[in-house]
Amino acid sequence: MTQQREKKVAGLLLFPNMTQLDLTGPLEVLGRLPSWRVEIVAPTLAPVRTDKGLVIQPDACFKTASIYELFVVPGGPGTDDAILDPEIVDFVRDRSNAAAYIFGICTGSLLLGAAGLLRGRRSGGHWQARDLLSQFGAIPCDDRLTIDGNIYTSGGVTAGIDMALRVAAEVASEEVAQQIQLQIEYDPEPPFKAGTPFVAPPEIVKRALAATAERRAIRVAAVETAAKRLETLLD
Amino acid sequence: MTQQREKKVAGLLLFPNMTQLDLTGPLEVLGRLPSWRVEIVAPTLAPVRTDKGLVIQPDACFKTASIYELFVVPGGPGTDDAILDPEIVDFVRDRSNAAAYIFGICTGSLLLGAAGLLRGRRSGGHWQARDLLSQFGAIPCDDRLTIDGNIYTSGGVTAGIDMALRVAAEVASEEVAQQIQLQIEYDPEPPFKAGTPFVAPPEIVKRALAATAERRAIRVAAVETAAKRLETLLD
Repeated sequence: MTQQREKKVAGLLLFPNMTQLDLTGPLEVLGRLPSWRVEIVAPTLAPVRTDKGLVIQPDACFKTASIYELFVVPGGPGTDDAILDPEIVDFVRDRSNAAAYIFGICTGSLLLGAAGLLRGRRSGGHWQARDLLSQFGAIPCDDRLTIDGNIYTSGGVTAGIDMALRVAAEVASEEVAQQIQLQIEYDPEPPFKAGTPFVAPPEIVKRALAATAERRAIRVAAVETAAKRLETLLD
Repeated sequence: MTQQREKKVAGLLLFPNMTQLDLTGPLEVLGRLPSWRVEIVAPTLAPVRTDKGLVIQPDACFKTASIYELFVVPGGPGTDDAILDPEIVDFVRDRSNAAAYIFGICTGSLLLGAAGLLRGRRSGGHWQARDLLSQFGAIPCDDRLTIDGNIYTSGGVTAGIDMALRVAAEVASEEVAQQIQLQIEYDPEPPFKAGTPFVAPPEIVKRALAATAERRAIRVAAVETAAKRLETLLD
C-alpha cells in the first residue's frame, strides 16, 4: 500500500463563478495537515473560472472523485446557479453523507441547504445570504463559526480560514493547528472595523446592500426554486 | 477606447511551488477594486502548480504581460528557485520599476531584494526568512506591514490580505476598502494566539523551526548566490 493511499482526503468543491478565497483560504490550512491530502473537485476536468477571474484546474471530476473524510463547500455568486444544478446538488449530498466533517463556507451553506443537509440545524453563512437558509429548514446563525453535529458553517469568505484552523485542531491536534497558524503567520491586523454589518459604519453597510440589490433578487428567486425542489424530493 | 483599456491593472506574479494564499489573498481584495482589473502573470502560459498542489492558469506570460500600476510578488518554497532564475528576477525588476505600488508578500520580498529593489529600504517578510533580507541591502522589519516609499512588504501568507486592504484604501478610498472588507467579512477570529513567533507558545516555534531546518539551509545558500549575482550586476 502506498503512503498516498493511507492519507485522509479533504475534498474542496470547485464550480464556475464561485469566490476563490472561500476555497483557497481553507486549502492553505488543510493542505498543511500531516497525513492528509487535498483534492479539488469540479463537475468536469475542465479549468474553472472563479468570480474575479482566477482560473483553477481541478484535480478530479465528479466521476473520478475520491470519498472525502472532510468535504468543503465554498460559495460566491456562482452559488445561485449551483443550487439549481441537480448534478452539483446530488454530488454535495452524496459526498456530505459519506464525510466525517462537512464544511460550508460563505454562501456554500446554501448549497448544503439545497442538498437537504441543514434541516433543523443551526447554520451560518455570508451575512447577506444568511436569512435565506431558513428556506431550507435551517436555523440561521450570525456567528462567524457555527458548528452543529458534523456540519461546520462559516460567515463570508475569510471566515473559512478561521474555520479550517478550528477543524485542523479537531482532526489533528491543537499543536498541529497552532503550528499551521504560525506557518501562515495568521495574526490578523484588519485595517478597519468593517468586517461585519454589526461593526461596520452604517453608511458602508447601506452601500454594500445597494451594490448587491440586483444580485440579491436573483438569489432569492434561485433559493425559492431550490427549496421547492427539495420539498418535492422529501415528499 | 474600451472600458477594459481604461482600467488600471494589478499584476500578480505566479511561479512554480509558490504559496497560493500569498497570491489569492490579495487577489480577493484587489479583484474587487472598482476601475481596476487583475492579471495573473507567469513565465509562460502553462498552468502552474503551487506548493500545496493547487494548479492555477495564468492570464498572461512575461512576453504578453501588461504594465502594472500595482505589482504583487508572492513567496513560498518556490522563491528559492525564483531568486536564481534570471528571467523571473529581471521581470520583477522591470515591472516593479514601472509600477506605482510594489507589493512583496511573505518571502516575495526576497525576490524584490534579489532584483535590487530593497537596498537601504525597510522591508518585512515571512518570520522565518526576514533576517535574510539584509543580504540584499535591506533593513529587515518585524512588523506585519512595512511601507518604505512605494514598496509595501508584509509578513507571511495571510498578511497579504491586511496589506491589500491597506493599499485599497490608498489607491481607491477608505470607504471602498471598508466595503471590500465587509464583502469578504474580514473580522478575523483566529482560534489560537499562535500567529507570530512572538506570541506563539515557544514549543510550537521550536517545532516549526525544526520542521523547516532543511529548507532553511537551501534558502540560505540560494540567497547567498542571488546576493552575489546582484553585487556583480551593480559593480
